[in-house]
Amino acid sequence: MIERENINFQLREIDEHLKAAISVDCVIFGYDQSELKVLTLECNMAPYVGMPSLIGDLVNEDENLDQAATRILYERTGISDIFLEQVKAFGETDRHPLERVVTIAYYALIKVDEFKNDNGALRQHQAKWSPLNQLEEMAFDHRLILESSLHLLRKRLIEYPLWMKLLPKYFSLPDLQNLFEAILGTTLDKRNFRKKISNLELVREVGKMQKDVPHRPAKLYAVNEKKLKKDFSFLLQNPFIN
Amino acid sequence: MIERENINFQLREIDEHLKAAISVDCVIFGYDQSELKVLTLECNMAPYVGMPSLIGDLVNEDENLDQAATRILYERTGISDIFLEQVKAFGETDRHPLERVVTIAYYALIKVDEFKNDNGALRQHQAKWSPLNQLEEMAFDHRLILESSLHLLRKRLIEYPLWMKLLPKYFSLPDLQNLFEAILGTTLDKRNFRKKISNLELVREVGKMQKDVPHRPAKLYAVNEKKLKKDFSFLLQNPFIN
Repeated sequence: MIERENINFQLREIDEHLKAAISVDCVIFGYDQSELKVLTLECNMAPYVGMPSLIGDLVNEDENLDQAATRILYERTGISDIFLEQVKAFGETDRHPLERVVTIAYYALIKVDEFKNDNGALRQHQAKWSPLNQLEEMAFDHRLILESSLHLLRKRLIEYPLWMKLLPKYFSLPDLQNLFEAILGTTLDKRNFRKKISNLELVREVGKMQKDVPHRPAKLYAVNEKKLKKDFSFLLQNPFIN
Repeated sequence: MIERENINFQLREIDEHLKAAISVDCVIFGYDQSELKVLTLECNMAPYVGMPSLIGDLVNEDENLDQAATRILYERTGISDIFLEQVKAFGETDRHPLERVVTIAYYALIKVDEFKNDNGALRQHQAKWSPLNQLEEMAFDHRLILESSLHLLRKRLIEYPLWMKLLPKYFSLPDLQNLFEAILGTTLDKRNFRKKISNLELVREVGKMQKDVPHRPAKLYAVNEKKLKKDFSFLLQNPFIN
């Protein structure tokens, strides 16, 4: 009997006091040649009207968190088939002006030029790419969510080959350095960068040179997929295990 | 007017369909000399009666997620003043038998012998340390939560000096290797382990030897705090920046 009483008590407690809305917010990072941008909407909820917000909405009763993130991103932007990773949950009591809303943040990294900006969902919701430095002020706690997601993205740069898909099949070392600089938000010393890339064996020479460039052609490289597949996680997962 | 209608619609939607209970679950890892354990309770909710569960409860209306985790851990075990880090949110629609409950997982790593097992909270709730291999079957999705938390703990082993506080002021290299082996759940090659520890400069010799041991006394070391403070994160945060 004690058990059933406990459950009934807990159910009453849940119904009366302890429910919150659950939302997801998607931080979609876009690499635009030499710059990292974020996909934003214009907020239409007071007191944040007109401010940039992340792409988010409430989670439905019949979907888990990953499914909600995928659906909401698709409904708002027409983007599908991309890898979304959960960042964490944000649950300050005052983070939403209307209700208690706990939000689960997700992020993804895509190429801006793969983003089709002629689809109906996009026209309706007017999602647009915003450079990071134009996002100092955002609706809700979205600036905090953006910063946490950026921190995770920067860590993932060496944990997983997320960046592989942002480069063409063959690329120069300056192309690769530009990409890393855009994501890390800093300039890197050319010689040290090349030494580390070489030590990590992340790329391999393909025996070709750049063509039709206005400067001295550079050597072309490809991602060293064998190395990546084999032990890309070596730095992190088990650095003490051979 | 469109704006207000939107808000009213959204509020109705939240009230009618889209609320869930929010809980936190704490994965408290304990290092017990040579073994990694987890603090568990005995579940009293069908269909999981008698199975080990993590330390969790509902989040109150007036507390954020971190505050809820700290409070719940204290109420159930009497443990306070430890570093809890959020792992992620778990939100499968069927993860709780009574209601939709989205749970936010937290983990911490402490020394088992610092766990006071004579406090009232503990007596009431009967929290106990369970070896990992005794937790194959757990209540709810707690096995999955445990595995995700363990994965994060193992990564943190090299990201943050969490393990520093698990060792005495002076320790031998076998002590350190035991600790790493317990957390990683594997045996490590002695020579390679020492080489990596040396390369990372994580510890320093203190010019003392073990005393009163039944084997040949080993050299004693201390954590190289200077190195840790300076650039412990070098492996991860910005491996390409000097």
